[in-house]
Amino acid sequence: MSDKDYVIGFDLGGTKLMATALDRSFKPLASNRKKTRAVDGGEAVYQRIKTCISDLVDQSELKGRSLKGIGMGGPGILDSETGVIVYTPNLHWENFPLGPRLQDDFDVKVCLDNDVNMGLYGEFHFGAGRGFKHVIGLFPGTGIGGGLVLNGEIYRGTGNAGELGHMTLEVGGPFGAEKMRGTLEALASRLAIAKEAAVLAAQGEAPWLLKNAGTDIGNIRSGVIAQSIENGDKPIERVVRRAARYLGVAMGSLVNIFSPEAIILGGGLIEKLEDLYMEETVKAMKKNSFTFMSKNVKVLPAALGDDAAVMGAAKLISEQLERE
Amino acid sequence: MSDKDYVIGFDLGGTKLMATALDRSFKPLASNRKKTRAVDGGEAVYQRIKTCISDLVDQSELKGRSLKGIGMGGPGILDSETGVIVYTPNLHWENFPLGPRLQDDFDVKVCLDNDVNMGLYGEFHFGAGRGFKHVIGLFPGTGIGGGLVLNGEIYRGTGNAGELGHMTLEVGGPFGAEKMRGTLEALASRLAIAKEAAVLAAQGEAPWLLKNAGTDIGNIRSGVIAQSIENGDKPIERVVRRAARYLGVAMGSLVNIFSPEAIILGGGLIEKLEDLYMEETVKAMKKNSFTFMSKNVKVLPAALGDDAAVMGAAKLISEQLERE
Repeated sequence: MSDKDYVIGFDLGGTKLMATALDRSFKPLASNRKKTRAVDGGEAVYQRIKTCISDLVDQSELKGRSLKGIGMGGPGILDSETGVIVYTPNLHWENFPLGPRLQDDFDVKVCLDNDVNMGLYGEFHFGAGRGFKHVIGLFPGTGIGGGLVLNGEIYRGTGNAGELGHMTLEVGGPFGAEKMRGTLEALASRLAIAKEAAVLAAQGEAPWLLKNAGTDIGNIRSGVIAQSIENGDKPIERVVRRAARYLGVAMGSLVNIFSPEAIILGGGLIEKLEDLYMEETVKAMKKNSFTFMSKNVKVLPAALGDDAAVMGAAKLISEQLERE
Repeated sequence: MSDKDYVIGFDLGGTKLMATALDRSFKPLASNRKKTRAVDGGEAVYQRIKTCISDLVDQSELKGRSLKGIGMGGPGILDSETGVIVYTPNLHWENFPLGPRLQDDFDVKVCLDNDVNMGLYGEFHFGAGRGFKHVIGLFPGTGIGGGLVLNGEIYRGTGNAGELGHMTLEVGGPFGAEKMRGTLEALASRLAIAKEAAVLAAQGEAPWLLKNAGTDIGNIRSGVIAQSIENGDKPIERVVRRAARYLGVAMGSLVNIFSPEAIILGGGLIEKLEDLYMEETVKAMKKNSFTFMSKNVKVLPAALGDDAAVMGAAKLISEQLERE
């Protein structure tokens, strides 16, 4: 890439689209955001993605510069080899050739990987994971996303490795994705916390929460959970601490499995309740792993926030362009 | 390596030493076995290892051939970069420079890795794992060993990755290594089966076992467990099926984590009770992983038996010699 070239990193989320143009030293040149509006259907979402990129290309900061590639982080099950989104229920896409279509429409190289991998790769190169070789990412949110950077590269296995939210921690435990039970996600995601919190609110054990958010688990989001604790709903704090301990147990298993240098924790819950999460997870991780392995593992909060996936996607497409 | 060169693959176990000389196409030229006799102490064990190799070098089949390297699979915590065995309680070694000493004594290149990694690497190149890129190994025995071949190479993380027996499957479950609880090993190893079997025998629920092996868990080994089932001790079969299901649950988590092509199962329990293990593990694996990931995973019994580690060690040292 020359001084005048740039790439676009794109984060395709269920609720918002984010695109950033970056020069060859990954300095952001311009950004664009739009709502995803998944309800409009798959083709409409694609057109919004296209407009989001076109708008960026048209912006004055980019005049005289040449777009070389697009790196895209997307949700759901996808095929990073072919650029096809295999299945994303919330975007109404099935076998949607996102990569090939963008490649045709913008006449540049496109790479596609899942948003969690892209986010972790961003953290690995530009954020909390800088300087390491083996880094694991865990992102508790509505579900729990996971990603693996092994030997400095995103590890994909035969395609969609890194589903760390679906490790079993309690055989026969609460219901999880598909027919799984007792998975990390079923025990420690925002929804897992919200369901316990809703019951406590309904039982009159969490008065602030009941008054301010009610008992609809859809309304009991990370910010509300943090506020409920701040405002004295003690039982909610116990629920979150238990969820954090489950996360730490999974981290212990991951230490024994991968012997990583660092584990990066990100997402809404960690952002709102960092101290609580750091305390509980590290303690549980150490209790559930070999001391000679865990003693050197750094547990770090994600550093790039919303920009992580965009940065990781930009880095990945740049590397692919360089290899050519 | 020329036609006249050979390497030695060595499997250093707690009870026996096995060494095989192999030519450059991995055809075995000669083998040697000795008891480890760990009770004699660390230096005595080293001298037996040395003799085991010297005897092999002296054998007539190897006359006129030239030893180029030694690949060694060892137990415990070790540093494959430096060749130092950091800690193996049952061999009385602490920070023992096994690799460097062999290198001095035989004046050839030596590589050291843990015996489970070497065994899996043997299966990967010459046995059940041939033709795959991402292979996971699980070896339930007295404990449960694990190994990872990712992108065609042994994955070590910062050193001792692949401790798959120490994944947590039941928070607060039975006691495991160090301060861990509810690990795969604590739930599904030969000792985990033996402790339940011993209680059943003591309670009169497993008459054949009680009569033929008693209630000492040290005597309730894989062969005895299999015979007890064959001879009608139904409750013992239930215990083993439960252990196999735990193994399958762990395999499900590993599918979600790694998206591998194959999982290889080996060790005494699998050898003696292959049908039972294949049936229960595959079922539990499928229930505890995403269908789109598990449907393509091959679950295979190990094919090389006792020779796996020796073959893997020979392959690994050969590759290191080639790279030079």
